[in-house]
Amino acid sequence: MKFRIAKEAFLDGLQQVQHVVSTRTTLPILSNVLIEAKDNQLRLTTTDLDVGVSGSVEAEVLKEGATTLPAKRLVSIIRELPSAEIEISIDAKNVANITSGPSFFKIIGLPNDEFPPLPDFDDAKEYRIPQIMFKEGLKKTAYAISTDETRYVLNGIFISFKEGKMTLVATDGRRLAMVENELEFPATHETEIIVPTKAIQELARLTSLEGDVIVKLQSNQISFAIGDSIIVSKLIEGNYPNYRQVIPGEKKERLDLNRESFFETVRRVSLLSSEKSNSVKLVFGPDNLDVTANSPEIGEAKESMAVKYSGPTFAIAFNPDFLMAPLRNLEEEELHLDLIDEMSPGVLRAAGNFLYVLMPMRVTN
Amino acid sequence: MKFRIAKEAFLDGLQQVQHVVSTRTTLPILSNVLIEAKDNQLRLTTTDLDVGVSGSVEAEVLKEGATTLPAKRLVSIIRELPSAEIEISIDAKNVANITSGPSFFKIIGLPNDEFPPLPDFDDAKEYRIPQIMFKEGLKKTAYAISTDETRYVLNGIFISFKEGKMTLVATDGRRLAMVENELEFPATHETEIIVPTKAIQELARLTSLEGDVIVKLQSNQISFAIGDSIIVSKLIEGNYPNYRQVIPGEKKERLDLNRESFFETVRRVSLLSSEKSNSVKLVFGPDNLDVTANSPEIGEAKESMAVKYSGPTFAIAFNPDFLMAPLRNLEEEELHLDLIDEMSPGVLRAAGNFLYVLMPMRVTN
Repeated sequence: MKFRIAKEAFLDGLQQVQHVVSTRTTLPILSNVLIEAKDNQLRLTTTDLDVGVSGSVEAEVLKEGATTLPAKRLVSIIRELPSAEIEISIDAKNVANITSGPSFFKIIGLPNDEFPPLPDFDDAKEYRIPQIMFKEGLKKTAYAISTDETRYVLNGIFISFKEGKMTLVATDGRRLAMVENELEFPATHETEIIVPTKAIQELARLTSLEGDVIVKLQSNQISFAIGDSIIVSKLIEGNYPNYRQVIPGEKKERLDLNRESFFETVRRVSLLSSEKSNSVKLVFGPDNLDVTANSPEIGEAKESMAVKYSGPTFAIAFNPDFLMAPLRNLEEEELHLDLIDEMSPGVLRAAGNFLYVLMPMRVTN
Repeated sequence: MKFRIAKEAFLDGLQQVQHVVSTRTTLPILSNVLIEAKDNQLRLTTTDLDVGVSGSVEAEVLKEGATTLPAKRLVSIIRELPSAEIEISIDAKNVANITSGPSFFKIIGLPNDEFPPLPDFDDAKEYRIPQIMFKEGLKKTAYAISTDETRYVLNGIFISFKEGKMTLVATDGRRLAMVENELEFPATHETEIIVPTKAIQELARLTSLEGDVIVKLQSNQISFAIGDSIIVSKLIEGNYPNYRQVIPGEKKERLDLNRESFFETVRRVSLLSSEKSNSVKLVFGPDNLDVTANSPEIGEAKESMAVKYSGPTFAIAFNPDFLMAPLRNLEEEELHLDLIDEMSPGVLRAAGNFLYVLMPMRVTN
């Protein structure tokens, strides 16, 4: 195998697939990227056996073939090369000779036939989803995914295809984020799945604001095709909690507020929330919101902001990090905060399709 | 005490002194910054008992006075304030009320009379040194300071005032960096001292390219005055090794090379130096230098560069990090590498006043 390639194009291609590669693995080939050279294209593929990513990049292929090379090391070398043009030839023993300007590198690879193939999706259900719908939906929900490995069904995003809607849900048990969009698919394609975090991260990375994602589903596997790139992943098996039950059916008070002002205010006040209680208190009065925090022995903070509110004066406390997470990830400027009382979950809503349920904390003093 | 101050000015002033503050200390007041308001100026002072820093900043002082407030927390609050104008008043119990736009913060301080005073330098020897000479000299030497706390005399920069010269030396036992400059001072002021790393870091931070540093020396203490700012520090007591002995008296071969090309080449090739040997090999031939590295089971790297050299072909190996450190910190483009043989230290020299002695590593294969 032998090819010439532009440094930046090769680096971009490698960087798109390198995140899946595991650095500590008992199976050394999983640290490698599969490189297949054919028809003036390189196909680059990585996998950790749970998630796989594959993409292609243009090259001048002088001799077709395939090999695998250590991914991270290859990226670190290609990044540093002094010339815009790179020539790589691989011998029968999978040793790559990399030449670029005055630099010469030799790195030892492994045979391509030892590389675990990505699964086929010949017999799959297919969905076509606008990339922007996926990208924004993931941004608005993914921060709420649980990182507690003992609760493995929560270590991903729940995706429901039901009644002409795609619903994305993430929760860690203390807060829940949900985005719902209308989507066309055949009634036979109604289903509910859980996609693991690592695949979600790759999907967020590879999607852009234009074009579609083609999703294919087959037994316990999913694939996402974005242009020439493909992400494949195992699904998380298990029962996702009944998230509809968590969303309060009623609301007593509604507050209209500006996302950015609210975010800045909570961020500043949270500087004085104590490590122990780690809460900020919201006190509502007519068209006014006071955000306060206090930390014994250190001090206290208070900030007022204008809001639209006409209900009775009352107070509720939240974990500031959980309150700020959606504010940081939304783009809508107008938000509604729906409340029942100081002991019931609050619901943050943005233009139509987003909601965030957050459990309050006990109000002190 | 009460004052109004511009947010950015206050933040700059605090950031200049905050590095000395220790976060984990058994003496809580050492986490605080002393604030003294007088004559429309704030003087800000921090100390860890070994090193102290003090600077001043303009303010509208409405009521003179002094207090101490937690430095890191104050910086984090001031940085986030929404308005360009800040008003701070401190009550008799050292509680600070900070107001800025809609924000209100209250933080608890400690009495200023508990703050340890910086030493006086009434009876000191005085030296006047151009800031640029100090700043560049520290940049060219400080990376070679030992971080091994058991060798405490090496945990700083050795400064010699002798024979009309100021000489700065840093070494960790495996390499040594030295910068020598002519400087006028009275013969009675000849001395040799060791300034600890922390004071060196503050000095590097506060010096600029114009004006002078006034250095004062008194028993085991030193102070550096830079405009309105002062750094004071204890000196390291002990005998610095005889660094003159380390510098080879002879040279057999001299190589002229371009700093930046050499740095880039070593950096690329070092990607393939093995973790175990961690060396790059330099092979000299007529007007040519080959830099090579190899890492069993991973691969190898080789790069050639043009140099000025007319001696015999030979090879010498160095630790790539130690070789790159001066290359990264120098600005001169033309360097000389003086060598005796493959077992003797190499000496890197730049325009007149800089030299760097580096022990070679055993050459393999």
